[in-house]
Amino acid sequence: MREYLERVRETSPLIHNITNYVTVNDCANILLACGGSPIMADDSREVEDITSICAGLNINIGTLNQHTIPAMLLAGKRANLCGHPVLLDPVGAGASALRTDTARRLMEGITFSAVRGNISEIKALAGEESAARGVDADAVDAVTEENLEQAEALVRAFAGRNHTVAAVSGAIDLVSDGERTYVIRGGHPIMSRITGSGCMLSAMTAAYIASNPEHILEAAAAAFCAMGLCGEIAWRRMKPEDGNSSFRNYLIDAVYNLDGETLEKGANYEVW
Amino acid sequence: MREYLERVRETSPLIHNITNYVTVNDCANILLACGGSPIMADDSREVEDITSICAGLNINIGTLNQHTIPAMLLAGKRANLCGHPVLLDPVGAGASALRTDTARRLMEGITFSAVRGNISEIKALAGEESAARGVDADAVDAVTEENLEQAEALVRAFAGRNHTVAAVSGAIDLVSDGERTYVIRGGHPIMSRITGSGCMLSAMTAAYIASNPEHILEAAAAAFCAMGLCGEIAWRRMKPEDGNSSFRNYLIDAVYNLDGETLEKGANYEVW
Amino acid sequence: MREYLERVRETSPLIHNITNYVTVNDCANILLACGGSPIMADDSREVEDITSICAGLNINIGTLNQHTIPAMLLAGKRANLCGHPVLLDPVGAGASALRTDTARRLMEGITFSAVRGNISEIKALAGEESAARGVDADAVDAVTEENLEQAEALVRAFAGRNHTVAAVSGAIDLVSDGERTYVIRGGHPIMSRITGSGCMLSAMTAAYIASNPEHILEAAAAAFCAMGLCGEIAWRRMKPEDGNSSFRNYLIDAVYNLDGETLEKGANYEVW
Repeated sequence: MREYLERVRETSPLIHNITNYVTVNDCANILLACGGSPIMADDSREVEDITSICAGLNINIGTLNQHTIPAMLLAGKRANLCGHPVLLDPVGAGASALRTDTARRLMEGITFSAVRGNISEIKALAGEESAARGVDADAVDAVTEENLEQAEALVRAFAGRNHTVAAVSGAIDLVSDGERTYVIRGGHPIMSRITGSGCMLSAMTAAYIASNPEHILEAAAAAFCAMGLCGEIAWRRMKPEDGNSSFRNYLIDAVYNLDGETLEKGANYEVW
Repeated sequence: MREYLERVRETSPLIHNITNYVTVNDCANILLACGGSPIMADDSREVEDITSICAGLNINIGTLNQHTIPAMLLAGKRANLCGHPVLLDPVGAGASALRTDTARRLMEGITFSAVRGNISEIKALAGEESAARGVDADAVDAVTEENLEQAEALVRAFAGRNHTVAAVSGAIDLVSDGERTYVIRGGHPIMSRITGSGCMLSAMTAAYIASNPEHILEAAAAAFCAMGLCGEIAWRRMKPEDGNSSFRNYLIDAVYNLDGETLEKGANYEVW
Repeated sequence: MREYLERVRETSPLIHNITNYVTVNDCANILLACGGSPIMADDSREVEDITSICAGLNINIGTLNQHTIPAMLLAGKRANLCGHPVLLDPVGAGASALRTDTARRLMEGITFSAVRGNISEIKALAGEESAARGVDADAVDAVTEENLEQAEALVRAFAGRNHTVAAVSGAIDLVSDGERTYVIRGGHPIMSRITGSGCMLSAMTAAYIASNPEHILEAAAAAFCAMGLCGEIAWRRMKPEDGNSSFRNYLIDAVYNLDGETLEKGANYEVW
């Protein structure tokens, strides 16, 4: 895992983000923390220029609107032409028709190197019954040790059918290219009590795959391992009076300080 | 007070926020801190879908624009149809004609369970002379022990005339349904030195009333008591080198850690 | 330097910001930290109203779009009519044609008291070969002790030709009105590892010049000295487990606590 992290720090990839205004500041700071560099631009008249000078593109539909959807398509197609890795975060797919339809339209028009979502979002995109509850995965859908085999099969099938890496975060993470699946344990439940843990993971995964374009599956898995491990490190810093706001700071700090050796030792995964 | 807080933690209400991009991240984190869950969506093509799956709606006009104003109206009307509590935060009413007019249009088109603002904003909506200074209450308008009776009468009348709960924050808070008024003391002056203390209070109040729809007045008052108390708890954590940025973190942390017993003991209010 | 800082704290200038959604919360909090007060508004129907009640205007093109560009022009022209200091932050000029062209159009239509950018952005606006890399200055362009004379000449010429104060931040800052140049040393490299250090400096500089309209050059230089010094103070607070997220908090905290005497003693500048 360490080589994927180190490659981010060595190459400092510039990542173009078309993302929601809720967690955009956290996404920018986590990109800087992991060794990348962020730029945000969502006007159709400039997204092709911007994405051309970047190493990767992160499309997040968290607060999509009539102006940003065409910009996402333009940017994605240009990034494809440039050969840059592109990641989709289908925030809230399943929660509104606009989100589900937009995510599907984006997947039809753009070749995504990776799709990073929670299990409810992936189910919604797969056309399965999804219990999406807003932007969070529903407890009914949650990946557990009990339903792990079924969930892994679903994620693997989604990846294979869509010729992408499906990167699904939760209590147990699943990252699959349709042939192999990384099953990753780690993190801490408090990560669901801050806004943006999913968005930050998408931004960081975009940096990892942009720096490791020949190893999309492994790099995405490394980003997931890094985030889970940093969640654990951040949790250990918590004092009794700390809450989710301090945790957010500690999490980004942990990403800032994470080195390859710590990741190598702390990553907890199996390959199925 | 404790039962209203505990009901939020038990029911974990999903709150739809159409809010400004300045403090939106803080609003999301305070909703998670108090036990709720946030979703932000402001495109007219999805706000009705989104608000339908939520328990309450928080409309904040802090950075309103030509696209979000129609979305606010659509969402508010749908939430009314669904019977969900809806809160208005008329940020900057009085500071521009667009804001004052928009707040009034929203109040004509939507039934609001509560309107949360500062005294200058409420005066502007009441058609009174207001000394609004941007988005903050003007010192001239501030509610003090000296003008408390007049201010309470104004807030009570506003609530009665508009068939809503008027929830007015300041050095002394006033929360009235036109019949009874909670007069709440607490908080700390540094709360006006961070951005978003008002917006966060609105978001949290939306969660409290969404979880306690039969007790809008009491639940709004409980949210105000909780925020004031958490301001005091956060202030006590401040070290000499800390400033407003650390205070913001401590405030959200305090909301995260607040339990019903602490609120019950610490709430400082009279009912007029 | 101290008088410029103290004048901000005495007059508490209300600053109208039309700025990007990435760092807007940090800009609001640093304005409050330094003694000013923020308001954000970007709809064309209200920006003239809003800027009229303010003391200064901060225009930042970080996430410009088709709606905010006309609003920037309207607000800037109105602020000029009102005689309020106006600052331009040409974020990413050089990174897309839209940004370069928009920054130039703004400079043609509005009289700016100051333009705050990094050296790559200023070079792009000056029509020189620029190695802009996204929104950060490129290493190739960086102002160092070796190229200081050339860089100073460039910044001075830009200021003179545009009848503005050019305020260029980097490892060495240059603030010039075309006749005199403040050469300012200080800060810490970690400032480039948080998002928003440039945007925050622009917002704070807008407050300083709004409170000191007769001394634009000196006030801008004071804001730069204050930010550099606060970067050093924040760095000294860093514990081993801290990273860029904690640094951001410490930086804003340091601005909150900075007094005139500390600034006077700590400012490290020459006047060329």
